[in-house]
Amino acid sequence: MTVVGIIGGTGKLGGLFRKIFEEEGFEVLVSSRTTSLSKEELIRKSDIIIVSVPIKSTIPVIREITPFIKEGKLLMDLTSLKVGPINEMLKSKADVLGAHPLFAPSIGDVKGQTIILCPQRISNKELYQKVNFILTNRGANIVEMTPEEHDKMMAVIQGLTHFSAIALCHCMKDLNFDIKKSFECTSPVYRLTLDMAGRILNQEPELYADISLLNPITPEILLQYIKSAETLFKKIQTKDREGFIKFFEEASQYLGDFTEKAEKESNLLIKKMVSE
Amino acid sequence: MTVVGIIGGTGKLGGLFRKIFEEEGFEVLVSSRTTSLSKEELIRKSDIIIVSVPIKSTIPVIREITPFIKEGKLLMDLTSLKVGPINEMLKSKADVLGAHPLFAPSIGDVKGQTIILCPQRISNKELYQKVNFILTNRGANIVEMTPEEHDKMMAVIQGLTHFSAIALCHCMKDLNFDIKKSFECTSPVYRLTLDMAGRILNQEPELYADISLLNPITPEILLQYIKSAETLFKKIQTKDREGFIKFFEEASQYLGDFTEKAEKESNLLIKKMVSE
Repeated sequence: MTVVGIIGGTGKLGGLFRKIFEEEGFEVLVSSRTTSLSKEELIRKSDIIIVSVPIKSTIPVIREITPFIKEGKLLMDLTSLKVGPINEMLKSKADVLGAHPLFAPSIGDVKGQTIILCPQRISNKELYQKVNFILTNRGANIVEMTPEEHDKMMAVIQGLTHFSAIALCHCMKDLNFDIKKSFECTSPVYRLTLDMAGRILNQEPELYADISLLNPITPEILLQYIKSAETLFKKIQTKDREGFIKFFEEASQYLGDFTEKAEKESNLLIKKMVSE
Repeated sequence: MTVVGIIGGTGKLGGLFRKIFEEEGFEVLVSSRTTSLSKEELIRKSDIIIVSVPIKSTIPVIREITPFIKEGKLLMDLTSLKVGPINEMLKSKADVLGAHPLFAPSIGDVKGQTIILCPQRISNKELYQKVNFILTNRGANIVEMTPEEHDKMMAVIQGLTHFSAIALCHCMKDLNFDIKKSFECTSPVYRLTLDMAGRILNQEPELYADISLLNPITPEILLQYIKSAETLFKKIQTKDREGFIKFFEEASQYLGDFTEKAEKESNLLIKKMVSE
């Protein structure tokens, strides 16, 4: 029988993966600060070793355990970042699989949820295929990419989206902008934009600090955003109408068909918002 | 009988106001490039004179007509900007009312729609009260503010919102970011943010250029935004976790109760989006 060992298996995400592997007939071992089983013992007994600890502890924990991991095992992590943890896991002798489940574990199952997998140095295909098959078979949407692709994508999807929303609201604060009065005369685009920003700013600042500060690609993405903003600002400041139109059209062409789709999708949402 | 004269009354917005005043029992005169009635004659015969021409032509048209307007009349415009047109209207001898209807005239009535009014130098209260009463009575949501408040508010509601969305998409283009792949592994916040950006980028670039370039307050608002973005960027670049958390909390406190409301409102929208 294949044995899965989860380090941090008493956390929310570790607990969900424990449940899934147990339901699929695996023996699951768990090691955390509250278990008697040590990490070293868990590693010796397991075929698949999953590290499921907070972002900040992931690399230190991997560094601590790699010396004990033998060839032929599969070492896997579940962090929102991939380049750093995977480079650390590659220092072991094991096969390496980076994973990033894009959902809150409180949802309780992987059905309909997206999980990014970064398979690296897979010599023993059997173990990787087992993991991939189980998740796919339970209805997860598996997207494979390289760790670099993943971190760049998350630097945009999470880092850049959070960044522009936080900067927007902080700027409104610095301007002493009367937000209550603005809601009396709002456009739907403005309201929905603030809804997204407000949603982000209703979360834990510590989590968002880790997502932004620990992704090594985020700074270069944000720097490009500031450059783009400065370029557009110059056009507005100098009243360069042709330049503004060209910049607008370039962005629009980049989105392609999506602009029409976005208008339809947001029309539905705006109707819904107005009717609530 | 009170006579209303609309300059540009054959356009969409002018046409809507013509319909409204006619239905309310006013005599309405219209002057445009396609009518035989001249602007001068219209002004002589009207008590309320409404300028309803494209943003770019508003100030030149007001400049052209002010010499002919006598005391006791009400001069009104319908532009998305207020400081410039109102300053120009104040050079006449008439009472001055700036208005900005916050809706597309294709909607066909003012019921449930927001109209910002900037009453300036109102010596003859009767004419202003007639206009205000008619719009309120037909179900419009009237918000009064100063021209400066209006232009600052629109520089944020329209200028800043459009600016950050256009810069975001142009940045993604400059990064060669794979947007199709990103949709395979998107979070709801990211999808809705791009929906709003795509909606903006599906409109006419010329209109958006005028909205951004002709509001004199937009540059200072955008400059503050770039400053806020640079401040946050520095915290991320130098991995200043405490500084990031403080900046995040300041923005969150500025939004106040709205963050929770935004999360609830966006939860509804996200459920709607997922179920479509």
